Amino acid sequence: MDFSIVDGGGVCFPRGFRAAGSAAGLKASGKEDVALLVSDAPAVCAGTFTTSLFPAAPVTRCRALLGGRDAFRAVFVNSGNANACTGAVGGRDAETTAAMVAERLGLDSGEVLVASTGRIGVPLPMDIVEKGVDMALSALSADGGAAAARAIMTTDTRPKEFAAKVPLGSVEVGIGGMAKGAGMIAPQMEVVPHATMLAFLTTDAAVERGFLAEILSDALERSFNRITVDGDESTNDTVLVLANGLAGNEPLSDGSPGADIFASALSAAMEKLARDIVLDGEGATKFVRVKALGAVSAGDAEACARTIADSLLCKTAWFGNDPNWGRVLAAAGRSGASFDPAKVSLFYDDAPVVSGGMDAGTPESELSEIMRKGDFEVRIDLGAGDAAFEVWTCDISREYVTINADYHT
Amino acid sequence: MDFSIVDGGGVCFPRGFRAAGSAAGLKASGKEDVALLVSDAPAVCAGTFTTSLFPAAPVTRCRALLGGRDAFRAVFVNSGNANACTGAVGGRDAETTAAMVAERLGLDSGEVLVASTGRIGVPLPMDIVEKGVDMALSALSADGGAAAARAIMTTDTRPKEFAAKVPLGSVEVGIGGMAKGAGMIAPQMEVVPHATMLAFLTTDAAVERGFLAEILSDALERSFNRITVDGDESTNDTVLVLANGLAGNEPLSDGSPGADIFASALSAAMEKLARDIVLDGEGATKFVRVKALGAVSAGDAEACARTIADSLLCKTAWFGNDPNWGRVLAAAGRSGASFDPAKVSLFYDDAPVVSGGMDAGTPESELSEIMRKGDFEVRIDLGAGDAAFEVWTCDISREYVTINADYHT
Repeated sequence: MDFSIVDGGGVCFPRGFRAAGSAAGLKASGKEDVALLVSDAPAVCAGTFTTSLFPAAPVTRCRALLGGRDAFRAVFVNSGNANACTGAVGGRDAETTAAMVAERLGLDSGEVLVASTGRIGVPLPMDIVEKGVDMALSALSADGGAAAARAIMTTDTRPKEFAAKVPLGSVEVGIGGMAKGAGMIAPQMEVVPHATMLAFLTTDAAVERGFLAEILSDALERSFNRITVDGDESTNDTVLVLANGLAGNEPLSDGSPGADIFASALSAAMEKLARDIVLDGEGATKFVRVKALGAVSAGDAEACARTIADSLLCKTAWFGNDPNWGRVLAAAGRSGASFDPAKVSLFYDDAPVVSGGMDAGTPESELSEIMRKGDFEVRIDLGAGDAAFEVWTCDISREYVTINADYHT
Repeated sequence: MDFSIVDGGGVCFPRGFRAAGSAAGLKASGKEDVALLVSDAPAVCAGTFTTSLFPAAPVTRCRALLGGRDAFRAVFVNSGNANACTGAVGGRDAETTAAMVAERLGLDSGEVLVASTGRIGVPLPMDIVEKGVDMALSALSADGGAAAARAIMTTDTRPKEFAAKVPLGSVEVGIGGMAKGAGMIAPQMEVVPHATMLAFLTTDAAVERGFLAEILSDALERSFNRITVDGDESTNDTVLVLANGLAGNEPLSDGSPGADIFASALSAAMEKLARDIVLDGEGATKFVRVKALGAVSAGDAEACARTIADSLLCKTAWFGNDPNWGRVLAAAGRSGASFDPAKVSLFYDDAPVVSGGMDAGTPESELSEIMRKGDFEVRIDLGAGDAAFEVWTCDISREYVTINADYHT
């Protein structure tokens, strides 16, 4: 038995979750900018956050709450303003936002988590936030997942959602998810993510809290922590998983029947959403899997893969369909990884590019053709050991510069 | 007494140096692509090179020669081809090039240094190189410095030269220099540089070899090792200083009269050439000094300054004259430096931008005006200690992407 992906589903796919997305006026564009996600039953929650020394106020608040409380009922998210670098005012605003949601839902404010994404350094306009809370509450429904997924977007060009059914003995549980992120993406979350990336996952499975945190952490390494658009980790990166137990299964813990398949499905959800973020990278025209293998250590493999993935010269060559493998080797050579240059091989998909540290002879036109597909693998074998690491990234285009130079002024 | 800069001078300004630049056909553009620099007397030489694990063949050769020999007579440089990642053939080609120059000048090939810059991974077309050697030899003259400075260019838009007169007791010595570099610039040379950057300095002063290496190393930290255009260290970074002693001064060593002023002049030469490289950064429209101070350690200060200087989001905001200071703080926050966010201040030139981790209130229009000057300082005070580090960098524009996406195919 395996899990199965459900097309078109999102955070409301599992039992007992309602959502909404509304346009309160935080975004100049007039698009949806507040999202609300509510669980009908108290939900166990696990989360992970940016490692930035400038965590946004909502990140600091979530972190504190997750450390001290077992169950949550709601998540309120605004886009258009990051509530980061806003000092004590920012902390109070995050708290006030949660209190406004809690009051209207008859909850304790500690049962409400908040998250923000958008411009850094500007205090939240609380009158607009309050209006947003009211609008989202009146729109709340089991059909609101898609609107919520739109409302958390910033420079994203499309919403990112996921849903799957997971058989657990006699019951079937659901997993849902939504994410946003297109730039300032290089998350290195506590168990390590980068754009602001936000991801919210829901499930009606009953899951023991420690186990939920553990499988979130494992899945993170295979998903959000291996993506980079621009190498710029955000102050607001947040992943939350809510498990409300309404499926009625025996609570899942390490080793319980079905725990593995549930963990695989959660990982699949996060991998899909992480991939969607890279595919929607600001101005991106290519999805590139950079794999470093044959490294002496896991740290060397990661350093090598990340240095290539974040190299501006590699990223601009990918944009131009230029096989220019010298840039890939130059990035490996400055990554800090240990290897003998004469033992290095490089492949673009299955085509040999470099062998023994030198041109492997595949015609450049053939390599360029692989790049033009828009989705390819850059695989470097350092020939020095057994460790490997994989990063998912994209190219950097003129459009990326336009988006980020004209962000504001 | 102080040294004085001589406008319009270059590598041939000191006594006994001749140079040439010729177009042999390595560049598709048909522009000058081979440079030759010859000292009429044996010259003591100090050098420093890329730390890349893929050093180009000429780098490997220079490094070996500098370790074992006291005096050199000539440097031959080609642009248009890096002779990097070319295996054993590359090593033989570098040796053959030196031998061709040596034979025609009646020298030992070990007295001839070679350097290359250009595309990685393509063997040198030795027939063209030989033609280039002959052309450069027949053009060699005391007026050839400017042509040599043009011949080492790749994506540079203008040559980079320097000359100064330095009084040393009863004699006056000269210092000359030329450099190239516009992209793949983030040198971390042995005593640490990045684009391919090449710099060649000449002096007619007599300088003790160990002392020359020492002052080169000191000056490097204040010049080439503090610049970054795109964060991509090259396989070919090379700095060579040749001192032929023809001024007839008592050889300079640590503590000798005039040693300090000579060291200052050498540093000024390297700082000027390093700054010229950033000013000519591929597609750059801004020169930005990023200074991190108040750090707990030198390592923290460097990590913070370099992370800001290499942040794509900061660099694109600078291109757009967007004060977006949240990106600067976000970069500091992920840099690994330790600090208390509430104690951080940020300035653009003299305008306070952030105070106590929050908006300092200077109007954005005023900050944007500072950026529009095209040359400004981003100064972050971490409020955590006494260490500081300064990096010189530039913005990233659409033109940068165009230059690097269309490099080849």
